[in-house]
Amino acid sequence: MTLLVAGWVAIDEIETPFARIRDSLGGSATCAALAGSLFTDVRLLAAIGEDFPSIERQKLEGRAIDLAGLETIPGGKTSRWGGRYHFDMNARDTIYTELGVNAAWKPVLPPGWAGSETAFLAAGDPVLQRDIIGMLSSPRATMVDTIKFFIDAAPAELQETMRTADFVSLNESEARELARTPSIARAGRVLLDAGPKGVLIKLGEYGAAFRSYQDYFVAPGYPLEEVIDPTGAGDAFAGGFLGYLDTVPHITSGEIRRAVIYGSTVASFQVEGYGPARLLTLTRGEVDLRYREFRALTHFEVEE
Amino acid sequence: MTLLVAGWVAIDEIETPFARIRDSLGGSATCAALAGSLFTDVRLLAAIGEDFPSIERQKLEGRAIDLAGLETIPGGKTSRWGGRYHFDMNARDTIYTELGVNAAWKPVLPPGWAGSETAFLAAGDPVLQRDIIGMLSSPRATMVDTIKFFIDAAPAELQETMRTADFVSLNESEARELARTPSIARAGRVLLDAGPKGVLIKLGEYGAAFRSYQDYFVAPGYPLEEVIDPTGAGDAFAGGFLGYLDTVPHITSGEIRRAVIYGSTVASFQVEGYGPARLLTLTRGEVDLRYREFRALTHFEVEE
Repeated sequence: MTLLVAGWVAIDEIETPFARIRDSLGGSATCAALAGSLFTDVRLLAAIGEDFPSIERQKLEGRAIDLAGLETIPGGKTSRWGGRYHFDMNARDTIYTELGVNAAWKPVLPPGWAGSETAFLAAGDPVLQRDIIGMLSSPRATMVDTIKFFIDAAPAELQETMRTADFVSLNESEARELARTPSIARAGRVLLDAGPKGVLIKLGEYGAAFRSYQDYFVAPGYPLEEVIDPTGAGDAFAGGFLGYLDTVPHITSGEIRRAVIYGSTVASFQVEGYGPARLLTLTRGEVDLRYREFRALTHFEVEE
Repeated sequence: MTLLVAGWVAIDEIETPFARIRDSLGGSATCAALAGSLFTDVRLLAAIGEDFPSIERQKLEGRAIDLAGLETIPGGKTSRWGGRYHFDMNARDTIYTELGVNAAWKPVLPPGWAGSETAFLAAGDPVLQRDIIGMLSSPRATMVDTIKFFIDAAPAELQETMRTADFVSLNESEARELARTPSIARAGRVLLDAGPKGVLIKLGEYGAAFRSYQDYFVAPGYPLEEVIDPTGAGDAFAGGFLGYLDTVPHITSGEIRRAVIYGSTVASFQVEGYGPARLLTLTRGEVDLRYREFRALTHFEVEE
């Protein structure tokens, strides 16, 4: 089985209350691909410029990630993002976004990739997301992520894309805005009515809520004493979620619940380093250990 | 077994984005006592003025709550609080606080009440909270709650009171401030080092985290499509938590986890009405049903 990850591979500049990191490997697809590669074979579909450092490419080459779809655009510049976090790390400001090669990227699937069973369309132009889903012959699970920019800029296109995806993931403020309700539970229902089979609402350090017509699952966040950098946590969540789902024989509600916990687990590692640094050394064994810890942290019995 | 609840019985004025309620039964002790009375016999220790409406007193008389400690201060005025909630109900402003009889209340335990096995000291002067704990002969579980006002106004007294209590409960922003860290997990550890046997950090709609030296438990919030009024949710949580604990033969980590879920369950009902209105009609059967729903919402298996 294979997980296709499409989105941005970028260079980030990150400022937290404790440090400032420049020229750091970043991008939604980078984090999701690294997370997914802990579970299954990943295909990375993204565009970079000729300026993309070979040392960063080597980091991706060391994992179970097929880079045949990582296209270097002649004369192009790699996308860049700069962000600054507030004291409690729950809020951030975008300082700049340089689209670079992603301003006009027209993704083309390498031969054989149309058969990918699972696909993650990281936040991006909803038309592009829909086009990529359309290139797949018979995907078993597709997930579309989005951000406030596209909710504001292309709401109708986003709605259309949500209808073509199996799962939609977004963070709680985006869910509230898109569904026009302050209630996370109601937002899940409203977004589900828009067409996908399941809606994953990411609650940052508070965990996540998954809603489908068959199931409602709420998972708390893994309690971390220190968060180094939250950048990419949502994409790592998606990569872990879909990476795990790609490996199961049947996508049941029980497997989706496990996938949420795997996603949450990988996201909890992601925030322990700058950008995807922690994911570069993370092993499946460490993930499974923390998954079990998650269960120990959350388990309770119905009264005897 | 008996749960002593000490704190405020007040009259509230509440403004939400959807309604404005005047002259509503309120107060920390009111909500905690009503919540606790779903599980065990409650003793209410609080002061009211001669102006306290008899219709509100009748609401309390209809439950398993001993009102021998509800002292009417001659010539005194009942405490009043007015608050306004923001659009997403996660933040509120206090419009006014009229201390009334609570400005100079000197609680005296009615005969026989010193033997109360369980006690909740709702947010208040930490010296008063400590005095009341000192009046108990051999309590099995005591919990102290606090708010930003006392963290700012009497930090040393609060630290001393935390050493005398079994459990401390506070909301996340208060925990972060008192422990001087943005991390909820670290705040739990820092506060635990201050003396109590367990720290309950309330996360509002996101649930709660409980930390002791033996255990760490994280529980998500119950997903509600509509929140009417969050006032008193934390006190209802405490009442449910201690009310359940009062009934168990041995206070184990497993029972504390159940108590957290019972607290969270009762709090989820509390916010479904203005003030404690929903608790006045709530039954233990409804609580047990939602407790089981909670388990269904959160349960997941370790991979086969």
